Amino acid sequence: MATPFPGEFAFIEWVRQGQAASPAVAVGVGDDCAVLPASPSATLVTTDMLMEGSCFRLAEAGPYRVGRKAMAVNVSDIAAMAGTPKAAFVSLGLPRSMSFEVVKELHRGLQAVAAEFGIAIAGGDTNTWDGPLTVSVTLIGAVHPRGPVLRSGAKVGDWIFVTGPLGGSILGHHLDFIPRVAVARWLHETVNLNAMIDVSDGLAKDLHRIMEASGVGAELDSAMIPMTDAAARLSNEDGMSALDHALGDGEDFELVFTVSAEDGRLLSKMKSPDGVTCHRIGQIVENGFWLIDDKIRTALRPVGYEHRFTS
Amino acid sequence: MATPFPGEFAFIEWVRQGQAASPAVAVGVGDDCAVLPASPSATLVTTDMLMEGSCFRLAEAGPYRVGRKAMAVNVSDIAAMAGTPKAAFVSLGLPRSMSFEVVKELHRGLQAVAAEFGIAIAGGDTNTWDGPLTVSVTLIGAVHPRGPVLRSGAKVGDWIFVTGPLGGSILGHHLDFIPRVAVARWLHETVNLNAMIDVSDGLAKDLHRIMEASGVGAELDSAMIPMTDAAARLSNEDGMSALDHALGDGEDFELVFTVSAEDGRLLSKMKSPDGVTCHRIGQIVENGFWLIDDKIRTALRPVGYEHRFTS
Repeated sequence: MATPFPGEFAFIEWVRQGQAASPAVAVGVGDDCAVLPASPSATLVTTDMLMEGSCFRLAEAGPYRVGRKAMAVNVSDIAAMAGTPKAAFVSLGLPRSMSFEVVKELHRGLQAVAAEFGIAIAGGDTNTWDGPLTVSVTLIGAVHPRGPVLRSGAKVGDWIFVTGPLGGSILGHHLDFIPRVAVARWLHETVNLNAMIDVSDGLAKDLHRIMEASGVGAELDSAMIPMTDAAARLSNEDGMSALDHALGDGEDFELVFTVSAEDGRLLSKMKSPDGVTCHRIGQIVENGFWLIDDKIRTALRPVGYEHRFTS
Repeated sequence: MATPFPGEFAFIEWVRQGQAASPAVAVGVGDDCAVLPASPSATLVTTDMLMEGSCFRLAEAGPYRVGRKAMAVNVSDIAAMAGTPKAAFVSLGLPRSMSFEVVKELHRGLQAVAAEFGIAIAGGDTNTWDGPLTVSVTLIGAVHPRGPVLRSGAKVGDWIFVTGPLGGSILGHHLDFIPRVAVARWLHETVNLNAMIDVSDGLAKDLHRIMEASGVGAELDSAMIPMTDAAARLSNEDGMSALDHALGDGEDFELVFTVSAEDGRLLSKMKSPDGVTCHRIGQIVENGFWLIDDKIRTALRPVGYEHRFTS
C-alpha cells in the first residue's frame, strides 16, 4: 500500500520525537498501553471526537486549527472541573488522499495546545481510511486538591458568572479559543465554586445542565450578558439578535459558574492573575428559567445550537 | 433535526441505564469529565479506533460483533501487559441514516465485553455525521501488583510461547475472540514473563516488535506453531500456506510471550485455570529472525497483514 503512514503508531512515534522538550508527565509509551504513574488524587477523564463536516470544515479551518481545536475542547472539559490536564491519547482516521504535510500541520496544532498546558501526548491509534477526517482525543487530568467542581452544587441566591463574552464563535473563536484552565484553578482557590460548566452547546443549554443537576432555576439579565463583536456581526447578517447568538450559539468555551452572593461581590472587584474578568450575568432562583430583558421577565428555553448534528 | 440522538451524552446515558447491575469501578459520570478514584498503583491507558471498511464491514459483521470487537481489541492491549481493565470511554461517529435498533445492538456488543471483564463504560462522545461508522474506545486499567509486562525484557535463550492457534481470523475470530486477560494474569503470577505482546498485526510482525524492544533475535519452529482450521481453509482457497496465514494474518489476539527455559519447561506441563494451553513455538536468539522448517533455517521477514490499510 502506498501510504505515508507505515504503521499504527507512526503518527505517535513522530509526535514523540517532536515533543522531546515538552514538560511531560512521566509516562511509558511504546508498549501496548501507556503507563501513567500512581496518582495520589482522583483522576479526570474526558473524551471528544471531532469529525469533518460536523465539528469543523477542514478546507476552511486548515489542519493546524483543527488539531488545535481537537485538543482544546478536551482541555476545556478539564478546566470546567478546575482540574489540570496531564496526558492525551489521540486517535486519527485520516483520509487516504491526505498528504503528510497536512497531517504534520494537524499534529502541530494538537501539539501547540498540549505544550501550552504541559500535556504529554502519550499514545493513540493512527488509521487511514476512505472516510473523512476524524480526530478523537481522550484527555486525562488531575483533580485539584480542593476536589473537582461539579454541576450539581448551585444554590438558590447564587450569583451566575461567565468568564468572557459569548456568541458568534462560528466566525473563528470555536477554533482559536484558549481553554480556561488557569482561571478555573484561580477561582477554585479564591472562592467556593458551587457549580461550573464550560459553554460548548450554548449558554442557555449548558446553564440548564447546571440547573438540572442542582435542582434549581436561574434568571439571566440580558443587559449583563457580555457579547462578542462576532455575535453583533452575525446579527447584522441573519436578523437574529446578538443576544440570541450569545444565548444559543455555543462553542464559546467560556466557563459558567455559580458562587454565593458574598463570593460574587468579592469576584466583581477582581481580575484573575492572567487578566480575565468574570461577568455576573444573573442569579440562581428556586425554579424556572428566566430572562430579564428591559425589566420584563420571559421564560427561556434551554436550547442551543446543536453544532454536532447540523452541517 | 430528526435524529434519535438528541444530545452528546444520549448514548452514554442509555448505556448507564442499561448497566446498572454491572460490577463497575467507582466513577462519577455526568459532569464534563468522569472522576476515577485515586489509584495506589500505576495506570494503563490504551486506545483503538475501529472504522467501517477498514477494521470491519458492518453489513457482514453486524453491529453487535462490531461493538464487541471495539471493546475487545482494547481489552487485549491491557491483557498484553497483564493488567486489569477498569473503565472505558466510547466515542461514536454514527451515520445519520443508522437506525436506533442498530445503535442498540452496537451498544449491546460493547456492553457484553465490558460486563464480562468488569469494565464500567464511564463516558464518551456521541456524534452523528455523513461519514461511515467509527467507534473509538479508550480503556483504562490497573497495573498488576507485580508491575506491567513490557515488550523489552526478552533474553537470549528464552522460550517463545503463544496462547492459542493462529491464522485466518478474517473468517470470524477477529470479531469473536476472547481477550486473554485471565491467562495473562495467571502467567504473571506463575512464571517470570520477560516480554509479552498481543498478536494484532500478525505473529511475525508482533514478535519482531518484542525483538526490537529487547535487542534480540528469534527463531520459530514451523512444526510447533499452532494453526487454526480457518488458516487451513483460507490456504485451500488462496494457495498461500496455512503457515503463512498463521505468521502474517494478524487479529488473532492471542498473546506471544517469552520466559526462561526453566519457566518454559514448567509451563509446558500446565494449563491455565480457564483451560488455556500455552504452545512453545521457538526461542530467543542473539540476532536475526529465523524460521526452522523441516530442519532448514530461513530468514523471516517481519511482515504482517496490514489490516488497517486495506479494505
